[in-house]
Amino acid sequence: MTFETSLIDSALRNWRSNVDRADKLFGNLSQEQLLQEVAPGKNRLIYLWGHLTAFNDALIPLLGFGSRIRPELDLMFVSNPDRTVTTILSGGELKIIWQETSQILWTGFSKLSVADWLLKHGAVSEEDFLREPHRNRFTVLLARTTHIAYHLGQAKLSERVQT
Amino acid sequence: MTFETSLIDSALRNWRSNVDRADKLFGNLSQEQLLQEVAPGKNRLIYLWGHLTAFNDALIPLLGFGSRIRPELDLMFVSNPDRTVTTILSGGELKIIWQETSQILWTGFSKLSVADWLLKHGAVSEEDFLREPHRNRFTVLLARTTHIAYHLGQAKLSERVQT
Repeated sequence: MTFETSLIDSALRNWRSNVDRADKLFGNLSQEQLLQEVAPGKNRLIYLWGHLTAFNDALIPLLGFGSRIRPELDLMFVSNPDRTVTTILSGGELKIIWQETSQILWTGFSKLSVADWLLKHGAVSEEDFLREPHRNRFTVLLARTTHIAYHLGQAKLSERVQT
Repeated sequence: MTFETSLIDSALRNWRSNVDRADKLFGNLSQEQLLQEVAPGKNRLIYLWGHLTAFNDALIPLLGFGSRIRPELDLMFVSNPDRTVTTILSGGELKIIWQETSQILWTGFSKLSVADWLLKHGAVSEEDFLREPHRNRFTVLLARTTHIAYHLGQAKLSERVQT
């Protein structure tokens, strides 16, 4: 490996490790367990899982890998707070989407060259990117990895998910 | 910037962003607020802050930047659970150590070359590193960034820290 590919390899390992943790933590819970709140009055586990799934799905176009597969996740798990949308997906449905988006992203990651990783992501204009070249795909990968970890920490607080 | 330094720059920005969030979140709370639990029966905010401070301090020797400045933090915030050690540091004391360790780490980071980042960290043997070259300093930086985010997510659950 070159220096560049070693650095990218580290970031991909960290991504994978957090995705796998989420997969294990949420994927092994029953629907009843997923409907528990992480703490009294706080988000339910299913909301956090749907939220992370929506963010993974949104990464697909942001990194230039194609179209989202389930844009309707945003209304259920991002733009509206938990318990305000009456019909949301079940844990079983989220599990399938989580694994599908994870696979699409992993395939996309593996095709990017070092130079590709440093190209702008989909939500920044050419003009802004000239001024702020750190708004690249690699930065997005790192930020989304910490986003998963942030909510994993919350999900682990629920007594029902002690592992 | 070269490809390598751009990749490292992204990781350092992500580290800094999470350290700054922790600084703002914990550093603005009163001692009374810090003694609140993040959720009923869970760790208190002061424990999470001490825990992150102990981990930052331990990063100093792990990355080869020198000796720890406060190794006694481990007994209070790492090796023993919350509320089992009678005398722990106050928020005011933690704030000073947090800022001091953050400064030492930042100075150390800025002196590392690309090749340095890919050297083994202090807790892996030469022999193991030959087999597992991903156990390098850059990987540690990424893992510790997600560790901060993990506990930030928990700390944000406390109603007393709504910002």
